[in-house]
Amino acid sequence: MEKPLILVSNDDGITAKGIRLLVEIMSNIGEVVVVAPDGPQSGMGHAITIGNTLRLEETDIFKGIPAYECSGTPADCVKIAKHFVLKDRKPDLVVSGINHGSNTSISVLYSGTMSAAIEGAIEGMPAIGFSLCDYSSDADFSHIRDYVDRIARMVLDKGLSKGVALNVNFPPKRNEKLKGIKVCRQARAKWQEEFDQRFDPNGRRYFWLAGNFVNHDQGEDNDEWAIANNYVSVVPCQFDLTAHHEVVNLNSDWENIVDL
Amino acid sequence: MEKPLILVSNDDGITAKGIRLLVEIMSNIGEVVVVAPDGPQSGMGHAITIGNTLRLEETDIFKGIPAYECSGTPADCVKIAKHFVLKDRKPDLVVSGINHGSNTSISVLYSGTMSAAIEGAIEGMPAIGFSLCDYSSDADFSHIRDYVDRIARMVLDKGLSKGVALNVNFPPKRNEKLKGIKVCRQARAKWQEEFDQRFDPNGRRYFWLAGNFVNHDQGEDNDEWAIANNYVSVVPCQFDLTAHHEVVNLNSDWENIVDL
Repeated sequence: MEKPLILVSNDDGITAKGIRLLVEIMSNIGEVVVVAPDGPQSGMGHAITIGNTLRLEETDIFKGIPAYECSGTPADCVKIAKHFVLKDRKPDLVVSGINHGSNTSISVLYSGTMSAAIEGAIEGMPAIGFSLCDYSSDADFSHIRDYVDRIARMVLDKGLSKGVALNVNFPPKRNEKLKGIKVCRQARAKWQEEFDQRFDPNGRRYFWLAGNFVNHDQGEDNDEWAIANNYVSVVPCQFDLTAHHEVVNLNSDWENIVDL
Repeated sequence: MEKPLILVSNDDGITAKGIRLLVEIMSNIGEVVVVAPDGPQSGMGHAITIGNTLRLEETDIFKGIPAYECSGTPADCVKIAKHFVLKDRKPDLVVSGINHGSNTSISVLYSGTMSAAIEGAIEGMPAIGFSLCDYSSDADFSHIRDYVDRIARMVLDKGLSKGVALNVNFPPKRNEKLKGIKVCRQARAKWQEEFDQRFDPNGRRYFWLAGNFVNHDQGEDNDEWAIANNYVSVVPCQFDLTAHHEVVNLNSDWENIVDL
Protein backbone atom coordinates (compact mmCIF):
# COMPACT_ATOMS: atom_id res chain seq x y z
CA MET A 1 0.00 0.00 0.00
CA GLU A 2 1.19 3.48 -0.82
CA LYS A 3 2.13 5.59 2.15
CA PRO A 4 -0.19 8.50 2.89
CA LEU A 5 1.12 11.97 2.03
CA ILE A 6 1.22 14.24 5.08
CA LEU A 7 1.78 18.00 4.94
CA VAL A 8 3.25 19.48 8.13
CA SER A 9 3.19 23.17 9.09
CA ASN A 10 3.08 25.28 12.25
CA ASP A 11 3.15 28.85 13.50
CA ASP A 12 6.15 28.85 15.84
CA GLY A 13 8.48 28.60 12.85
CA ILE A 14 10.28 25.71 11.20
CA THR A 15 13.00 25.46 13.87
CA ALA A 16 10.63 25.05 16.85
CA LYS A 17 10.84 21.95 19.03
CA GLY A 18 7.14 21.20 18.50
CA ILE A 19 7.37 20.84 14.73
CA ARG A 20 10.48 18.68 15.02
CA LEU A 21 8.54 16.18 17.10
CA LEU A 22 5.52 16.36 14.80
CA VAL A 23 7.71 15.64 11.74
CA GLU A 24 9.28 12.71 13.58
CA ILE A 25 5.92 11.19 14.52
CA MET A 26 4.42 11.72 11.06
CA SER A 27 7.47 10.14 9.39
CA ASN A 28 6.49 6.85 11.02
CA ILE A 29 3.04 7.12 9.50
CA GLY A 30 3.54 8.41 5.98
CA GLU A 31 5.50 10.41 3.45
CA VAL A 32 6.09 13.85 4.94
CA VAL A 33 6.50 17.25 3.29
CA VAL A 34 7.11 20.28 5.50
CA VAL A 35 6.21 23.87 4.57
CA ALA A 36 6.43 26.11 7.60
CA PRO A 37 7.11 29.77 8.43
CA ASP A 38 10.74 30.92 8.54
CA GLY A 39 10.07 32.63 11.87
CA PRO A 40 7.43 32.94 14.59
CA GLN A 41 3.90 33.65 13.32
CA SER A 42 1.97 33.26 16.56
CA GLY A 43 -1.23 35.26 16.77
CA MET A 44 -1.47 35.61 13.00
CA GLY A 45 -5.01 34.23 12.92
CA HIS A 46 -6.11 33.51 9.39
CA ALA A 47 -3.92 36.22 7.87
CA ILE A 48 -2.67 35.82 4.31
CA THR A 49 -0.06 37.84 2.43
CA ILE A 50 -1.72 39.80 -0.33
CA GLY A 51 -0.02 43.19 -0.35
CA ASN A 52 3.51 41.82 -0.26
CA THR A 53 5.73 39.15 -1.77
CA LEU A 54 6.50 35.70 -0.40
CA ARG A 55 9.81 33.87 -0.19
CA LEU A 56 10.12 30.09 -0.20
CA GLU A 57 13.43 28.29 0.35
CA GLU A 58 14.19 24.57 0.55
CA THR A 59 15.97 23.53 3.72
CA ASP A 60 17.60 20.28 4.88
CA ILE A 61 16.94 20.69 8.59
CA PHE A 62 14.82 17.54 8.66
CA LYS A 63 17.51 15.39 7.01
CA GLY A 64 16.07 13.68 3.97
CA ILE A 65 12.53 14.97 4.44
CA PRO A 66 11.54 17.60 1.88
CA ALA A 67 11.11 20.84 3.79
CA TYR A 68 10.56 24.47 2.83
CA GLU A 69 10.63 27.62 4.89
CA CYS A 70 8.29 30.35 3.84
CA SER A 71 8.29 34.04 4.74
CA GLY A 72 4.49 34.09 4.99
CA THR A 73 1.81 33.17 7.48
CA PRO A 74 0.71 29.61 8.33
CA ALA A 75 -2.25 29.97 5.92
CA ASP A 76 0.18 31.10 3.20
CA CYS A 77 2.31 28.00 3.90
CA VAL A 78 -0.58 25.63 3.28
CA LYS A 79 -1.64 27.50 0.15
CA ILE A 80 1.86 27.54 -1.35
CA ALA A 81 2.38 23.90 -0.35
CA LYS A 82 -0.79 22.80 -2.11
CA HIS A 83 -0.57 24.98 -5.20
CA PHE A 84 3.17 25.24 -5.79
CA VAL A 85 5.27 22.71 -3.86
CA LEU A 86 3.00 19.68 -4.22
CA LYS A 87 1.46 20.75 -7.52
CA ASP A 88 -1.06 18.07 -8.39
CA ARG A 89 -0.52 15.84 -5.38
CA LYS A 90 -3.16 16.31 -2.70
CA PRO A 91 -2.09 15.50 0.87
CA ASP A 92 -4.07 12.82 2.68
CA LEU A 93 -3.59 14.76 5.90
CA VAL A 94 -2.51 18.24 6.99
CA VAL A 95 -1.09 18.60 10.49
CA SER A 96 0.00 21.80 12.18
CA GLY A 97 1.99 22.34 15.36
CA ILE A 98 2.77 21.07 17.81
CA ASN A 99 2.18 24.57 19.12
CA HIS A 100 4.06 25.80 22.16
CA GLY A 101 1.05 27.13 24.05
CA SER A 102 -2.70 26.69 24.36
CA ASN A 103 -5.12 27.20 21.48
CA THR A 104 -8.25 26.40 23.45
CA SER A 105 -11.44 28.44 23.56
CA ILE A 106 -11.40 31.84 21.80
CA SER A 107 -7.67 31.50 21.09
CA VAL A 108 -8.61 29.36 18.09
CA LEU A 109 -9.45 32.62 16.27
CA TYR A 110 -6.04 34.18 16.87
CA SER A 111 -4.15 30.95 16.33
CA GLY A 112 -1.76 30.57 13.42
CA THR A 113 -1.54 26.85 14.19
CA MET A 114 -5.26 26.41 13.62
CA SER A 115 -5.32 28.68 10.56
CA ALA A 116 -2.99 26.22 8.81
CA ALA A 117 -5.35 23.37 9.72
CA ILE A 118 -8.45 25.31 8.70
CA GLU A 119 -6.80 26.27 5.42
CA GLY A 120 -6.27 22.54 4.85
CA ALA A 121 -9.96 21.91 5.50
CA ILE A 122 -10.93 24.69 3.07
CA GLU A 123 -8.86 22.88 0.46
CA GLY A 124 -10.79 19.68 1.20
CA MET A 125 -8.07 17.86 3.15
CA PRO A 126 -8.47 16.24 6.60
CA ALA A 127 -6.58 18.55 8.93
CA ILE A 128 -5.53 18.72 12.57
CA GLY A 129 -3.93 21.46 14.67
CA PHE A 130 -2.00 20.19 17.71
CA SER A 131 -1.14 22.43 20.66
CA LEU A 132 0.49 21.77 24.01
CA CYS A 133 -0.67 24.04 26.84
CA ASP A 134 2.89 24.96 27.75
CA TYR A 135 4.42 28.13 26.27
CA SER A 136 8.03 27.18 27.02
CA SER A 137 10.25 26.85 23.96
CA ASP A 138 11.76 23.82 25.68
CA ALA A 139 8.40 22.30 26.67
CA ASP A 140 8.19 18.61 27.59
CA PHE A 141 6.21 16.80 24.87
CA SER A 142 6.97 13.24 26.04
CA HIS A 143 3.49 12.52 27.44
CA ILE A 144 1.65 13.38 24.21
CA ARG A 145 3.63 11.54 21.55
CA ASP A 146 1.41 8.44 21.49
CA TYR A 147 -1.76 10.54 21.38
CA VAL A 148 -0.52 12.58 18.41
CA ASP A 149 0.30 9.35 16.61
CA ARG A 150 -3.06 7.74 17.41
CA ILE A 151 -5.14 10.80 16.50
CA ALA A 152 -3.35 11.24 13.16
CA ARG A 153 -3.81 7.55 12.29
CA MET A 154 -7.49 7.67 13.26
CA VAL A 155 -8.12 10.68 11.04
CA LEU A 156 -6.24 9.07 8.14
CA ASP A 157 -8.31 5.93 8.63
CA LYS A 158 -11.77 7.43 9.15
CA GLY A 159 -11.45 10.88 7.56
CA LEU A 160 -13.27 13.95 8.80
CA SER A 161 -16.57 15.48 7.76
CA LYS A 162 -16.37 18.08 5.02
CA GLY A 163 -15.70 21.57 6.29
CA VAL A 164 -14.31 20.42 9.64
CA ALA A 165 -10.78 20.55 11.07
CA LEU A 166 -9.75 19.34 14.52
CA ASN A 167 -8.35 21.59 17.22
CA VAL A 168 -6.43 19.27 19.55
CA ASN A 169 -4.99 20.63 22.79
CA PHE A 170 -2.89 18.71 25.31
CA PRO A 171 -2.48 19.44 29.01
CA PRO A 172 1.04 20.31 30.12
CA LYS A 173 3.09 17.48 31.56
CA ARG A 174 1.88 16.80 35.08
CA ASN A 175 2.59 14.08 37.61
CA GLU A 176 -0.65 12.31 36.74
CA LYS A 177 -1.04 10.38 33.46
CA LEU A 178 -3.37 11.83 30.78
CA LYS A 179 -6.90 10.53 31.30
CA GLY A 180 -7.89 10.14 27.64
CA ILE A 181 -9.64 12.18 24.97
CA LYS A 182 -12.68 14.46 25.28
CA VAL A 183 -14.34 15.64 22.09
CA CYS A 184 -15.92 18.90 23.17
CA ARG A 185 -16.91 22.45 22.32
CA GLN A 186 -14.89 25.65 22.42
CA ALA A 187 -15.17 27.14 25.93
CA ARG A 188 -16.85 30.52 26.35
CA ALA A 189 -13.86 32.42 27.64
CA LYS A 190 -11.87 35.43 26.49
CA TRP A 191 -8.69 37.38 26.91
CA GLN A 192 -8.92 40.36 29.22
CA GLU A 193 -6.47 42.69 27.53
CA GLU A 194 -4.25 45.28 29.03
CA PHE A 195 -1.99 47.65 27.11
CA ASP A 196 1.37 48.20 28.70
CA GLN A 197 2.35 51.76 27.78
CA ARG A 198 6.09 52.52 27.49
CA PHE A 199 8.30 55.18 25.97
CA ASP A 200 11.13 54.56 23.52
CA PRO A 201 14.59 56.24 23.81
CA ASN A 202 13.20 59.15 21.76
CA GLY A 203 10.35 59.69 24.19
CA ARG A 204 7.74 58.33 21.78
CA ARG A 205 4.96 56.21 23.19
CA TYR A 206 4.51 52.55 22.32
CA PHE A 207 2.51 49.62 23.67
CA TRP A 208 2.74 45.95 24.38
CA LEU A 209 -0.45 43.94 24.21
CA ALA A 210 -0.77 41.95 27.42
CA GLY A 211 -3.59 40.43 29.38
CA ASN A 212 -5.07 37.45 31.11
CA PHE A 213 -7.25 34.61 29.97
CA VAL A 214 -10.57 34.72 31.81
CA ASN A 215 -12.83 31.68 31.79
CA HIS A 216 -16.41 32.15 32.98
CA ASP A 217 -17.64 28.92 31.38
CA GLN A 218 -19.06 26.61 34.07
CA GLY A 219 -19.69 23.68 31.70
CA GLU A 220 -17.90 20.35 31.72
CA ASP A 221 -18.29 19.82 27.98
CA ASN A 222 -15.67 22.31 26.80
CA ASP A 223 -11.96 22.34 26.03
CA GLU A 224 -10.92 24.40 29.05
CA TRP A 225 -12.58 21.90 31.39
CA ALA A 226 -10.92 19.02 29.56
CA ILE A 227 -7.43 20.51 29.86
CA ALA A 228 -7.93 21.46 33.52
CA ASN A 229 -8.97 17.86 34.21
CA ASN A 230 -6.01 16.32 32.38
CA TYR A 231 -7.86 15.18 29.27
CA VAL A 232 -6.79 15.76 25.68
CA SER A 233 -9.37 18.16 24.18
CA VAL A 234 -10.54 17.69 20.59
CA VAL A 235 -12.80 20.42 19.18
CA PRO A 236 -14.19 19.95 15.66
CA CYS A 237 -13.96 23.42 14.07
CA GLN A 238 -15.76 24.77 11.03
CA PHE A 239 -15.03 27.64 8.69
CA ASP A 240 -18.67 28.37 7.95
CA LEU A 241 -19.06 31.25 10.41
CA THR A 242 -22.79 31.67 9.70
CA ALA A 243 -24.88 31.77 12.87
CA HIS A 244 -27.59 29.76 11.12
CA HIS A 245 -30.04 30.08 14.02
CA GLU A 246 -30.00 33.86 13.55
CA VAL A 247 -30.79 34.00 9.83
CA VAL A 248 -34.54 33.58 10.20
CA ASN A 249 -34.80 35.90 13.21
CA LEU A 250 -33.06 38.73 11.45
CA ASN A 251 -34.86 38.30 8.14
CA SER A 252 -38.21 38.96 9.75
CA ASP A 253 -36.97 42.42 10.72
CA TRP A 254 -35.17 43.27 7.56
CA GLU A 255 -36.73 41.71 4.53
CA ASN A 256 -39.14 44.60 4.14
CA ILE A 257 -36.49 47.27 3.90
CA VAL A 258 -36.52 47.64 0.15
CA ASP A 259 -37.02 51.23 -0.79
CA LEU A 260 -33.87 53.10 0.18
CA MET B 1 -31.31 61.34 25.32
CA GLU B 2 -27.60 60.67 25.30
CA LYS B 3 -26.11 59.95 21.92
CA PRO B 4 -24.88 56.38 21.37
CA LEU B 5 -21.12 55.88 21.36
CA ILE B 6 -19.91 54.38 18.08
CA LEU B 7 -16.42 52.97 17.51
CA VAL B 8 -15.28 53.02 13.87
CA SER B 9 -12.43 50.96 12.43
CA ASN B 10 -11.48 49.34 9.13
CA ASP B 11 -8.73 47.40 7.38
CA ASP B 12 -7.93 49.61 4.39
CA GLY B 13 -6.31 52.16 6.69
CA ILE B 14 -7.52 55.40 8.23
CA THR B 15 -7.18 57.45 5.03
CA ALA B 16 -9.37 55.20 2.84
CA LYS B 17 -12.45 56.64 1.16
CA GLY B 18 -14.67 53.94 2.71
CA ILE B 19 -13.91 54.86 6.32
CA ARG B 20 -14.40 58.56 5.57
CA LEU B 21 -17.94 57.85 4.44
CA LEU B 22 -18.58 55.53 7.38
CA VAL B 23 -17.43 58.21 9.85
CA GLU B 24 -19.66 60.76 8.13
CA ILE B 25 -22.74 58.53 8.31
CA MET B 26 -22.10 57.49 11.92
CA SER B 27 -21.61 61.12 12.99
CA ASN B 28 -25.27 61.71 12.16
CA ILE B 29 -26.26 58.87 14.45
CA GLY B 30 -24.03 59.16 17.48
CA GLU B 31 -20.80 60.18 19.11
CA VAL B 32 -17.97 58.74 17.04
CA VAL B 33 -14.47 57.61 18.01
CA VAL B 34 -12.16 56.27 15.30
CA VAL B 35 -9.29 53.84 15.89
CA ALA B 36 -8.04 52.46 12.60
CA PRO B 37 -4.84 51.07 11.10
CA ASP B 38 -2.22 53.56 9.89
CA GLY B 39 -1.91 51.63 6.63
CA PRO B 40 -3.55 48.83 4.66
CA GLN B 41 -4.27 45.65 6.66
CA SER B 42 -6.28 43.72 4.10
CA GLY B 43 -6.12 39.96 4.43
CA MET B 44 -4.97 40.13 8.03
CA GLY B 45 -7.74 37.83 9.21
CA HIS B 46 -7.97 37.78 12.97
CA ALA B 47 -4.28 38.50 13.47
CA ILE B 48 -3.14 40.30 16.62
CA THR B 49 0.24 41.79 17.46
CA ILE B 50 1.86 39.77 20.23
CA GLY B 51 5.54 39.55 19.32
CA ASN B 52 5.97 43.20 18.53
CA THR B 53 5.10 46.66 19.81
CA LEU B 54 2.18 48.86 18.81
CA ARG B 55 2.08 52.58 18.05
CA LEU B 56 -0.98 54.74 18.55
CA GLU B 57 -1.13 58.39 17.44
CA GLU B 58 -4.00 60.87 17.61
CA THR B 59 -4.87 62.45 14.27
CA ASP B 60 -7.18 65.30 13.22
CA ILE B 61 -8.07 63.99 9.79
CA PHE B 62 -11.76 63.75 10.73
CA LYS B 63 -11.92 67.39 11.94
CA GLY B 64 -13.29 67.45 15.46
CA ILE B 65 -13.92 63.73 15.71
CA PRO B 66 -11.50 61.93 18.03
CA ALA B 67 -9.41 59.66 15.84
CA TYR B 68 -6.34 57.50 16.36
CA GLU B 69 -4.16 55.68 13.89
CA CYS B 70 -2.64 52.43 15.11
CA SER B 71 0.27 50.45 13.70
CA GLY B 72 -1.49 47.16 14.40
CA THR B 73 -4.15 44.98 12.84
CA PRO B 74 -7.89 45.71 12.83
CA ALA B 75 -8.34 43.37 15.82
CA ASP B 76 -5.57 45.27 17.65
CA CYS B 77 -7.40 48.54 16.89
CA VAL B 78 -10.60 47.37 18.56
CA LYS B 79 -8.70 45.98 21.55
CA ILE B 80 -6.68 49.17 22.12
CA ALA B 81 -9.78 51.30 21.55
CA LYS B 82 -11.74 49.41 24.19
CA HIS B 83 -9.00 48.96 26.77
CA PHE B 84 -6.91 52.10 26.35
CA VAL B 85 -8.58 54.88 24.33
CA LEU B 86 -12.12 54.54 25.71
CA LYS B 87 -11.08 53.17 29.09
CA ASP B 88 -14.29 52.51 30.96
CA ARG B 89 -16.72 53.63 28.26
CA LYS B 90 -18.19 50.74 26.31
CA PRO B 91 -19.28 51.55 22.75
CA ASP B 92 -22.94 50.94 21.91
CA LEU B 93 -21.89 49.89 18.44
CA VAL B 94 -18.71 48.89 16.61
CA VAL B 95 -18.64 49.41 12.85
CA SER B 96 -15.84 48.47 10.48
CA GLY B 97 -15.27 49.43 6.85
CA ILE B 98 -16.61 50.38 4.49
CA ASN B 99 -14.24 47.92 2.88
CA HIS B 100 -13.10 48.45 -0.68
CA GLY B 101 -13.82 44.92 -1.92
CA SER B 102 -16.00 41.92 -1.20
CA ASN B 103 -15.97 40.02 2.08
CA THR B 104 -18.59 37.47 1.11
CA SER B 105 -18.33 33.70 1.51
CA ILE B 106 -14.98 32.28 2.67
CA SER B 107 -13.37 35.75 2.46
CA VAL B 108 -14.86 36.46 5.89
CA LEU B 109 -12.02 34.36 7.35
CA TYR B 110 -9.28 36.41 5.69
CA SER B 111 -11.02 39.73 6.22
CA GLY B 112 -9.51 42.39 8.44
CA THR B 113 -12.77 44.32 8.20
CA MET B 114 -14.70 41.47 9.75
CA SER B 115 -12.03 40.72 12.34
CA ALA B 116 -12.61 44.20 13.79
CA ALA B 117 -16.35 43.50 13.94
CA ILE B 118 -15.87 40.03 15.43
CA GLU B 119 -13.46 41.43 18.01
CA GLY B 120 -16.25 43.84 18.96
CA ALA B 121 -18.64 40.93 19.37
CA ILE B 122 -16.11 39.06 21.51
CA GLU B 123 -16.03 42.13 23.76
CA GLY B 124 -19.82 41.97 24.02
CA MET B 125 -20.63 44.91 21.73
CA PRO B 126 -23.05 44.89 18.78
CA ALA B 127 -20.81 44.99 15.72
CA ILE B 128 -21.10 45.26 11.95
CA GLY B 129 -18.57 44.93 9.14
CA PHE B 130 -19.53 46.78 5.93
CA SER B 131 -17.98 45.94 2.57
CA LEU B 132 -18.63 47.17 -0.94
CA CYS B 133 -17.97 44.62 -3.69
CA ASP B 134 -15.75 47.05 -5.60
CA TYR B 135 -11.99 46.97 -5.05
CA SER B 136 -11.32 50.41 -6.53
CA SER B 137 -9.81 52.92 -4.10
CA ASP B 138 -12.12 55.49 -5.70
CA ALA B 139 -15.21 53.24 -5.57
CA ASP B 140 -18.68 54.80 -5.84
CA PHE B 141 -20.44 54.43 -2.48
CA SER B 142 -23.42 56.69 -3.25
CA HIS B 143 -25.99 53.88 -3.60
CA ILE B 144 -25.29 52.36 -0.20
CA ARG B 145 -25.28 55.36 2.13
CA ASP B 146 -28.92 55.03 3.20
CA TYR B 147 -28.57 51.29 3.79
CA VAL B 148 -25.52 51.76 6.02
CA ASP B 149 -27.42 54.36 8.01
CA ARG B 150 -30.54 52.20 8.34
CA ILE B 151 -28.67 49.01 9.26
CA ALA B 152 -26.63 50.80 11.94
CA ARG B 153 -29.75 52.39 13.45
CA MET B 154 -31.58 49.07 13.43
CA VAL B 155 -28.75 47.33 15.27
CA LEU B 156 -28.51 50.17 17.80
CA ASP B 157 -32.26 49.92 18.33
CA LYS B 158 -32.71 46.14 18.48
CA GLY B 159 -29.22 44.90 19.41
CA LEU B 160 -27.77 41.63 18.23
CA SER B 161 -27.72 38.21 19.83
CA LYS B 162 -24.73 37.45 22.01
CA GLY B 163 -21.76 36.09 20.11
CA VAL B 164 -22.95 37.36 16.72
CA ALA B 165 -21.59 40.10 14.44
CA LEU B 166 -23.02 41.08 11.07
CA ASN B 167 -21.12 40.73 7.81
CA VAL B 168 -22.81 43.20 5.44
CA ASN B 169 -21.81 43.26 1.76
CA PHE B 170 -23.12 45.66 -0.88
CA PRO B 171 -23.25 45.08 -4.64
CA PRO B 172 -21.17 47.47 -6.72
CA LYS B 173 -23.01 50.46 -8.19
CA ARG B 174 -25.05 49.24 -11.15
CA ASN B 175 -27.69 50.84 -13.35
CA GLU B 176 -30.45 49.09 -11.42
CA LYS B 177 -31.44 50.22 -7.91
CA LEU B 178 -30.58 47.90 -4.97
CA LYS B 179 -33.46 45.47 -4.38
CA GLY B 180 -33.32 45.37 -0.59
CA ILE B 181 -31.70 43.23 2.12
CA LYS B 182 -31.24 39.45 2.24
CA VAL B 183 -30.21 37.91 5.53
CA CYS B 184 -28.42 34.77 4.43
CA ARG B 185 -25.66 32.25 4.96
CA GLN B 186 -22.02 32.34 3.89
CA ALA B 187 -21.76 30.84 0.38
CA ARG B 188 -19.78 27.64 -0.11
CA ALA B 189 -17.11 29.05 -2.37
CA LYS B 190 -13.34 29.39 -2.21
CA TRP B 191 -10.32 31.04 -3.71
CA GLN B 192 -8.47 29.00 -6.29
CA GLU B 193 -4.95 30.17 -5.63
CA GLU B 194 -2.08 30.54 -8.00
CA PHE B 195 1.44 31.53 -7.11
CA ASP B 196 3.06 33.89 -9.56
CA GLN B 197 6.78 33.08 -9.44
CA ARG B 198 9.21 35.91 -10.24
CA PHE B 199 12.90 36.69 -9.74
CA ASP B 200 14.28 39.77 -8.01
CA PRO B 201 17.21 41.82 -9.40
CA ASN B 202 19.57 39.49 -7.52
CA GLY B 203 18.11 36.43 -9.20
CA ARG B 204 16.37 35.24 -6.04
CA ARG B 205 12.93 33.74 -6.38
CA TYR B 206 9.82 35.32 -4.88
CA PHE B 207 6.08 34.89 -5.25
CA TRP B 208 2.87 36.84 -5.43
CA LEU B 209 -0.26 35.15 -4.16
CA ALA B 210 -2.92 35.41 -6.85
CA GLY B 211 -6.00 33.48 -7.82
CA ASN B 212 -9.65 33.48 -8.66
CA PHE B 213 -12.78 33.22 -6.59
CA VAL B 214 -14.68 30.06 -7.52
CA ASN B 215 -18.31 29.67 -6.49
CA HIS B 216 -19.87 26.22 -6.79
CA ASP B 217 -22.78 27.05 -4.47
CA GLN B 218 -26.07 26.60 -6.34
CA GLY B 219 -28.25 27.89 -3.49
CA GLU B 220 -30.27 31.09 -3.44
CA ASP B 221 -29.95 31.57 0.30
CA ASN B 222 -26.33 32.73 0.38
CA ASP B 223 -24.40 35.98 0.16
CA GLU B 224 -22.93 35.39 -3.29
CA TRP B 225 -26.40 34.89 -4.72
CA ALA B 226 -27.65 38.03 -2.96
CA ILE B 227 -24.84 40.22 -4.36
CA ALA B 228 -25.19 38.76 -7.86
CA ASN B 229 -28.90 39.58 -7.73
CA ASN B 230 -28.39 43.14 -6.50
CA TYR B 231 -29.43 42.61 -2.89
CA VAL B 232 -27.52 43.75 0.18
CA SER B 233 -26.29 40.58 1.92
CA VAL B 234 -26.32 40.33 5.71
CA VAL B 235 -24.68 37.24 7.22
CA PRO B 236 -24.82 36.82 11.00
CA CYS B 237 -21.37 35.49 11.96
CA GLN B 238 -20.29 33.73 15.11
CA PHE B 239 -16.91 33.24 16.74
CA ASP B 240 -17.78 29.89 18.27
CA LEU B 241 -16.13 27.74 15.60
CA THR B 242 -17.30 24.47 17.16
CA ALA B 243 -18.98 22.18 14.63
CA HIS B 244 -21.50 21.14 17.30
CA HIS B 245 -23.08 18.46 15.10
CA GLU B 246 -19.73 16.65 14.97
CA VAL B 247 -19.03 16.47 18.70
CA VAL B 248 -21.22 13.43 19.38
CA ASN B 249 -20.11 11.59 16.22
CA LEU B 250 -16.46 11.91 17.05
CA ASN B 251 -16.82 11.08 20.73
CA SER B 252 -18.21 7.66 19.95
CA ASP B 253 -14.91 6.83 18.20
CA TRP B 254 -12.56 8.42 20.63
CA GLU B 255 -13.86 8.32 24.16
CA ASN B 256 -12.40 4.88 24.71
CA ILE B 257 -8.85 5.81 23.87
CA VAL B 258 -7.61 6.16 27.42
CA ASP B 259 -4.55 4.07 27.93
CA LEU B 260 -1.75 5.66 25.93
